[in-house]
Amino acid sequence: MIGGGIGAFIGDAHRRASRICNDFEMVGGVFDADYEKSKQFAKKEGIPAERCYKTVDALIKAETAMPADKRMEVVAIVTPNALHFPFAIALLTAGFHLVCEKPMTMTVEEAVELEKLVAKKKLTFALTHTYTGYPMVRQMRDIIAKGTLGTIQRIDAQYYQGWINSIIHGTESRITGVWRLDPKHAGASSCMGDIGVHAFNLIEYTTGLEIKEVLSDLNPVKEGVKLDLDGTVLVRFSKNLKGVIRASQVCGGEENNLTIAVYGSKASLKWGQENPNYLTMLSDTEPAKIFKPAHGYNDKLAEASHTMPNGHPEGIYEALANIYKGTAKSIRGEKFTPGEFPTVHDGVRGMKFIHAVVESNKAGNKWVKV
Amino acid sequence: MIGGGIGAFIGDAHRRASRICNDFEMVGGVFDADYEKSKQFAKKEGIPAERCYKTVDALIKAETAMPADKRMEVVAIVTPNALHFPFAIALLTAGFHLVCEKPMTMTVEEAVELEKLVAKKKLTFALTHTYTGYPMVRQMRDIIAKGTLGTIQRIDAQYYQGWINSIIHGTESRITGVWRLDPKHAGASSCMGDIGVHAFNLIEYTTGLEIKEVLSDLNPVKEGVKLDLDGTVLVRFSKNLKGVIRASQVCGGEENNLTIAVYGSKASLKWGQENPNYLTMLSDTEPAKIFKPAHGYNDKLAEASHTMPNGHPEGIYEALANIYKGTAKSIRGEKFTPGEFPTVHDGVRGMKFIHAVVESNKAGNKWVKV
Amino acid sequence: MIGGGIGAFIGDAHRRASRICNDFEMVGGVFDADYEKSKQFAKKEGIPAERCYKTVDALIKAETAMPADKRMEVVAIVTPNALHFPFAIALLTAGFHLVCEKPMTMTVEEAVELEKLVAKKKLTFALTHTYTGYPMVRQMRDIIAKGTLGTIQRIDAQYYQGWINSIIHGTESRITGVWRLDPKHAGASSCMGDIGVHAFNLIEYTTGLEIKEVLSDLNPVKEGVKLDLDGTVLVRFSKNLKGVIRASQVCGGEENNLTIAVYGSKASLKWGQENPNYLTMLSDTEPAKIFKPAHGYNDKLAEASHTMPNGHPEGIYEALANIYKGTAKSIRGEKFTPGEFPTVHDGVRGMKFIHAVVESNKAGNKWVKV
Amino acid sequence: MIGGGIGAFIGDAHRRASRICNDFEMVGGVFDADYEKSKQFAKKEGIPAERCYKTVDALIKAETAMPADKRMEVVAIVTPNALHFPFAIALLTAGFHLVCEKPMTMTVEEAVELEKLVAKKKLTFALTHTYTGYPMVRQMRDIIAKGTLGTIQRIDAQYYQGWINSIIHGTESRITGVWRLDPKHAGASSCMGDIGVHAFNLIEYTTGLEIKEVLSDLNPVKEGVKLDLDGTVLVRFSKNLKGVIRASQVCGGEENNLTIAVYGSKASLKWGQENPNYLTMLSDTEPAKIFKPAHGYNDKLAEASHTMPNGHPEGIYEALANIYKGTAKSIRGEKFTPGEFPTVHDGVRGMKFIHAVVESNKAGNKWVKV
Repeated sequence: MIGGGIGAFIGDAHRRASRICNDFEMVGGVFDADYEKSKQFAKKEGIPAERCYKTVDALIKAETAMPADKRMEVVAIVTPNALHFPFAIALLTAGFHLVCEKPMTMTVEEAVELEKLVAKKKLTFALTHTYTGYPMVRQMRDIIAKGTLGTIQRIDAQYYQGWINSIIHGTESRITGVWRLDPKHAGASSCMGDIGVHAFNLIEYTTGLEIKEVLSDLNPVKEGVKLDLDGTVLVRFSKNLKGVIRASQVCGGEENNLTIAVYGSKASLKWGQENPNYLTMLSDTEPAKIFKPAHGYNDKLAEASHTMPNGHPEGIYEALANIYKGTAKSIRGEKFTPGEFPTVHDGVRGMKFIHAVVESNKAGNKWVKV
Repeated sequence: MIGGGIGAFIGDAHRRASRICNDFEMVGGVFDADYEKSKQFAKKEGIPAERCYKTVDALIKAETAMPADKRMEVVAIVTPNALHFPFAIALLTAGFHLVCEKPMTMTVEEAVELEKLVAKKKLTFALTHTYTGYPMVRQMRDIIAKGTLGTIQRIDAQYYQGWINSIIHGTESRITGVWRLDPKHAGASSCMGDIGVHAFNLIEYTTGLEIKEVLSDLNPVKEGVKLDLDGTVLVRFSKNLKGVIRASQVCGGEENNLTIAVYGSKASLKWGQENPNYLTMLSDTEPAKIFKPAHGYNDKLAEASHTMPNGHPEGIYEALANIYKGTAKSIRGEKFTPGEFPTVHDGVRGMKFIHAVVESNKAGNKWVKV
Repeated sequence: MIGGGIGAFIGDAHRRASRICNDFEMVGGVFDADYEKSKQFAKKEGIPAERCYKTVDALIKAETAMPADKRMEVVAIVTPNALHFPFAIALLTAGFHLVCEKPMTMTVEEAVELEKLVAKKKLTFALTHTYTGYPMVRQMRDIIAKGTLGTIQRIDAQYYQGWINSIIHGTESRITGVWRLDPKHAGASSCMGDIGVHAFNLIEYTTGLEIKEVLSDLNPVKEGVKLDLDGTVLVRFSKNLKGVIRASQVCGGEENNLTIAVYGSKASLKWGQENPNYLTMLSDTEPAKIFKPAHGYNDKLAEASHTMPNGHPEGIYEALANIYKGTAKSIRGEKFTPGEFPTVHDGVRGMKFIHAVVESNKAGNKWVKV
Repeated sequence: MIGGGIGAFIGDAHRRASRICNDFEMVGGVFDADYEKSKQFAKKEGIPAERCYKTVDALIKAETAMPADKRMEVVAIVTPNALHFPFAIALLTAGFHLVCEKPMTMTVEEAVELEKLVAKKKLTFALTHTYTGYPMVRQMRDIIAKGTLGTIQRIDAQYYQGWINSIIHGTESRITGVWRLDPKHAGASSCMGDIGVHAFNLIEYTTGLEIKEVLSDLNPVKEGVKLDLDGTVLVRFSKNLKGVIRASQVCGGEENNLTIAVYGSKASLKWGQENPNYLTMLSDTEPAKIFKPAHGYNDKLAEASHTMPNGHPEGIYEALANIYKGTAKSIRGEKFTPGEFPTVHDGVRGMKFIHAVVESNKAGNKWVKV
């Protein structure tokens, strides 16, 4: 693992999920840019001191020198955004499989380069669009793939959070001090790069459709903020299929309110991350139906993604564990269903989305191809 | 009453609501363009034959000739959209108070003319933006007026229906035969004119803010359809306050899903029409709060708008009855709170919104001032 | 109308509902035991002074002396419980149809006597078990009647309110001063008589089954309170079909939380009064289904009980108006469906339930036949 | 681990939860009564063959012979009910800490004996009343402990499932073949022993109150079934504090619907297992409040029980992991809060409840002391 040391919640989430999945064991890493902190963390986790490395280069050098059955096989990159790309290039080049946090890179060019390298090296690259690991998201994908909705007529995705509220209404230093608000570390966008891209990914994952063009209106919300903290993106799939992505980090009181609604001529589907075990199907002629995990009416992949009997809610770690599980299958060369884990191609799509959104806004809210 | 004869659900709704309110009695009208049908309807309702008029002109002539204590005092216009304006002009000129369905007119010019006439004649003109009659919508307006939300940072309104689905996927003749899809009768817009304008009105009603500019992307959804059945409108209130209005008539399975969310720096409010007795307040630091009608913690107007003890759900008729009640107060010259019923000015705002939305879309999704 | 004057919410509810229904007009009554107050109320409502009577006897005498087409045809009794019986007897004897609030009488004997008189006089007697007027309650009855649930295995009804909380934790005088807590005016029971009986009625209405035996445990909750404010009733339908009724007036913060769940071998149904437009069907093998009003999939009576298009919530007044509508049909001698309004027989069942519950509790929680 | 081999969902749940918690490592066990199956399972899990034991005795002998830093420290018993007691006695006697599934034993006597042995040996004994591991259950306990509810006036707990439905309506052999329906393996009760006891435990856990007496009405539902599959239990805490426990395994379509409501004179709390991240507080005078995990307004233990930022739902494994975490603290001799894990005393209480319930039913629904 690269990053994810003391105080980093996303690194902890990866570790918990990989332990649930039970196909991975953490054997070493570079847990913090500060070597002392990294070592403290390694000790706490029971990692031998010699496998707590000072740098990624040191890790590569030492691990590749070990015998095949001892060395680290897959690396999880959970650092701030700007470091994803250089570490990924170095690790892939050295032959490691990768699990990488999103957004995958800082630019579209980097993303494309990464995609090429993954193809060339024939390695597994999993991007943690965690929400695609929820059973009911997978069930949604399956229902849509079967054509149950008829012609899709509208798509609406939302990702509302409120946690940046307290930062921008705090002291000046908070606005400049948080890495997510600094273009150098966060990239071209805060809100769209961090969460809008999840909504984008969820649309493409569940529907199998590609967003062709976007027109965006972004909002830094407060003087002095350099990146978007809020925005709306009009999206087009084809001449008569349009939709919208709405995302915000300043919706005070919203927690992690990611939702998707796909409306078709015959039926429609709605899902929300905060109650992930419910998938609602609407139709004009029948009662609304609520799909839940662990039922025979679900698709195979959805069923395999929930391990408890019905009525026992599983949550976000189990979703991430499902991504890890698919990744493990791929690494071991086992058969897996497309959709079991997000690949480097999803990362490229995401980067294209973020950059098109930023460009549209800069151009005065004009349509831009994705 | 003008319009609202046999088979017209909105006319029936007005009658039921005015009976609940109990300040009105239906004494006559022109209930159908077809005089025979109109007479049948009058008979069924117990209206004396002589007050079932053939035309609006005949009604005006006969009623104004009656002694003041006998004659019709207020007229409800519930005809198709294109007839609202000419009838309203004629009736106002003759001195009748009006209750009028929305959209108020076909063009902005007509709306402005009507506003002038109402001002000149000093008559009461109520536009039935029914949803502003719900107790919890009024409570929302009151909470926002008190500044509880802090700086408003994002506004998101949605109005999703699915009922036109079956029309456009039916036979060709249905697409051409339904008046709402015909520009001659419905005006410049179907979706935005019929329902988008409710979302617009709800935003301005609850927040007291004016939408300054819009950028819209409308969708006729199917070949052969001449008006928008679906669309998204980016809206701007000020430099750093933006929002979005989403509306659709082809969201298969959606019934009458009008929602509004107003996000502030200190707290946020969410309300939805299908469960109108619940108003949710979110904050970053406290548990979410659910406001319900008939509680001492509500504002006076909200309380006066719910007549049963708490836990006894009231619905859409009661909301419309609240509009009628405010209108009655105004007609009788009693004191009333702004917000008790929507006025001709709300109609002007609505028409400006609809036309700006249509213009933005025609111009290739550019910003247009409201 | 007898009772229902100034400040009486239930009388107001009856008037609003009857106006929505539009088959009734209030022409006179005895609105208050205090004649002056009664007259004030009559004036406010536009009732001619001569039809605001001092006593029920005076009303009977004067109204029966009028010509048939002028005189009062039906009387609504909305007085405190103890007066239902004497007034009902007098009015029925004089040939008036009746609408009566529940509980119908103070004792089982009175209830049986009333039932006999109604039968003898061939008059319409409607007991306002209002909740049976909700469209989705009627849909529930229809689904169960069709056998869709298979063998019914468990029935659970709840009626929780909290409004007596503030009374018993207020001053001593409040406990003694409120008529609902005084056995002389309220009868043998407060909680079971006022609300438990609604849950009982709802069970028998929706399932068509009879409760054979009860075992109850009642709770006055606080020293000095003479009647039950809370209780649980075990109920038996047959050897292997059991259930429970739970009711309370001291569940702090509960508003009017009446729910029913009927569990069958093939499917189950759940409904709750606070969100009355939703009926949930559960099954072991299919997604849960949500039935809503104004859809083609509903039964005829359920459909006729909702007058707006789907998605426009109707509430408690509309439910009561549906009871009035059925009553009007009966009075006019029109055909109606059993279940359109609760009859005197439902009142007898209710009184038997209340008295069996009280007896079981007194006997030390033993089984008592209903 | 004893039991929990191939196909056993509860054993898998324990392993996943202990991996999330990260304080435990599975080093060996007796995974199946069938030694071959046990060995297959061990192989799959990467357990060395020599630590996959044929019997519990063999395990005890071999493990206690190992040096302290190598040997198994704690054993999880996840076998059918009848085996809990003999294995627990043997393992405790040999000095192992225990995690044990519920119901703890078959009889009250066994339970008491176990409690004594645990006390004598000063070992940690955790009973997996998993639901007490949910953050919002812990928050509920804390709010009640602080006295926020005022005087508690009613307590209502429900545990409805439907999964036995398909068994009893299947073939005869299913009724006799499933161990949960066989008194020899399941003990005195099916429904109350398996799930009613969870509702009982949840009441005592959240309120800190003891149930003094019960009166039960149990239902085998179908001819040929030997144990209760459904029942209602009246419960008494003190003279004026009563409540009810409702449980069923034949509520068709219900999944794992465990709920608790505690009503007080000042406020009330409601929680449900299927949406475990929501805790609702009701009051007569304020808007309802929804508590959610990962907020500063929660108690310390509740906060420590949720590891993701708010809005990221955690589920049943995380709840069980919280129990394991508390157990680990106890084993390591660290300080822990009462309520971090259920102890052998909770097991004794549970057995007393089950047996009192069965006795009350047998006695013809009479009150029995717990």
